[in-house]
Amino acid sequence: MILRATLIPHCGLSVALESPHSTLLASTAMERLERQLEFIVEIDRLKTILRRTVLTDGSRQENTAEHSWHLAMMALLLTEHADSEVNLARVIQMLLVHDIVEIDAGDTFCYDAEANLDKADREQRAADRIFGLLPADQEVELRALWDEFEKRDTADSRFANAIDRMQPVLQNLATSGHSWRLHKITKAQVLERNSPIGDGSKSIWSVLEQRIEEAFAKGLVVDGQLGE
Amino acid sequence: MILRATLIPHCGLSVALESPHSTLLASTAMERLERQLEFIVEIDRLKTILRRTVLTDGSRQENTAEHSWHLAMMALLLTEHADSEVNLARVIQMLLVHDIVEIDAGDTFCYDAEANLDKADREQRAADRIFGLLPADQEVELRALWDEFEKRDTADSRFANAIDRMQPVLQNLATSGHSWRLHKITKAQVLERNSPIGDGSKSIWSVLEQRIEEAFAKGLVVDGQLGE
Repeated sequence: MILRATLIPHCGLSVALESPHSTLLASTAMERLERQLEFIVEIDRLKTILRRTVLTDGSRQENTAEHSWHLAMMALLLTEHADSEVNLARVIQMLLVHDIVEIDAGDTFCYDAEANLDKADREQRAADRIFGLLPADQEVELRALWDEFEKRDTADSRFANAIDRMQPVLQNLATSGHSWRLHKITKAQVLERNSPIGDGSKSIWSVLEQRIEEAFAKGLVVDGQLGE
Repeated sequence: MILRATLIPHCGLSVALESPHSTLLASTAMERLERQLEFIVEIDRLKTILRRTVLTDGSRQENTAEHSWHLAMMALLLTEHADSEVNLARVIQMLLVHDIVEIDAGDTFCYDAEANLDKADREQRAADRIFGLLPADQEVELRALWDEFEKRDTADSRFANAIDRMQPVLQNLATSGHSWRLHKITKAQVLERNSPIGDGSKSIWSVLEQRIEEAFAKGLVVDGQLGE
């Protein structure tokens, strides 16, 4: 039954009063919720995308969903070290969203030059499909966060990228360079790949650079000598 | 070498000029960063804490770190359905932090009455140790987020709790009630456990309640009849 609220003003009825307008709003809200829930169930698949780094206990490869949680926690704690003022809420949102395209495009190992050739194409198609599941306004919003992360041309995205690069360095340092050794990555490659951390935070890069140098100097990480 | 900046004003030197004050600041910042990095490496262990729910593809149990990422993404998309105005940034931070105590305290199955008796004690001790790794101000900040989530007495924490409860419902509905069947949970238990979702969002609970009823009615989830 649809009652027009204007017909019975101030009557104190406790039942819900629905105008055609509010009915329309409610059905739109329900339709949005259905699409949002579909997207939420879909992105569960990010938990099955495996990265090259292993957990700090060495027990297994890390997946992209738990990696994204770790990055968001790091942002929450480390913004004081950012060289430019950043918006913490946006940095966290960017980090939560930035790898969702891997559901279709897979994780591309940062030291694999060949796989990186078509990475952008694969990820654009993935973004079309996956973000396209959402209501249009949220598709635009999440895609914009992802684009900004990829372009690295704002203070927020430079800091978010620094966080994204520093986490595998910490995982490697905690596991005697597990993925570096496995893929015969040299110290020079590690330093080159990770120096852009300094674009987001010079002090964080300074500490990590020193830890990398120490790890290689002590032989904890053996420069490109241990393979599979 | 420490130079006092006041001795050579406007000299255009490009080297860093350090006053005793700035040296102190820098060393404090470095000390903070060391503690933050220790905490960041420690919380990697949340990836090894297994929950009772399985991934939507049924392949394995979900861990608490990837679960926390999923919740933060859900908050990012669903705040429009909250019944009270909520602060999205705080809700996300609360969800990122709320299960970190499980590193020491383990995941306590919500339907396990006995294990829930000493849950609060175990989690308080875990919070002391784990958040205690951080610089004092951040220990206070993260602990306050966790306390607020546990108390459920603010709009932000009621909505965060609603998100935390609805995610396993979605995972169960996507897997024919995997963990409900495994632990012989009845429809009445599912409805009782999850009705507080309505304290954060009546519309979300309305949709989920209907889906739960339909799942049991269709026999997709068989009420307490399929055990291990």
